[in-house]
Amino acid sequence: MKVRVHVMLKQGVLDPQGEAVRHALGALGFEGVSSVRQGKVIELDLADGTSEATIGEMCEKLLANTVIESYRVEQL
Amino acid sequence: MKVRVHVMLKQGVLDPQGEAVRHALGALGFEGVSSVRQGKVIELDLADGTSEATIGEMCEKLLANTVIESYRVEQL
Repeated sequence: MKVRVHVMLKQGVLDPQGEAVRHALGALGFEGVSSVRQGKVIELDLADGTSEATIGEMCEKLLANTVIESYRVEQL
Repeated sequence: MKVRVHVMLKQGVLDPQGEAVRHALGALGFEGVSSVRQGKVIELDLADGTSEATIGEMCEKLLANTVIESYRVEQL
């Protein structure tokens, strides 16, 4: 089974990488870019029948830093 | 308007970051993880009416390295 995990910084957490992208887009002449947030997406190929709880545990223990990041699991 | 851009390494391009995650999940005792690919997700807050062509240009020029990465634009 394939699973996609989206990890984003939580609202209010400073995102210097996103900010750098915003600046760079402006420097390239793209106007009207008011905000950019950058996150990670992790595609996992898991054994069939891996439970949602196990996937949640993977996220909590390794994939996301839940102090500053939120995650969302999407089954493909 | 909000737009989400997904950037993933193309098939066949070595993904050391994903490989490191796969190893780490194994070391944490998670079994059956056969493959992991890691990519980026960029959420942009753009001026209303920004054309798809402009968004494509942003991706081609800055957000993705199209030699080794593919991208997908999702309107939110």
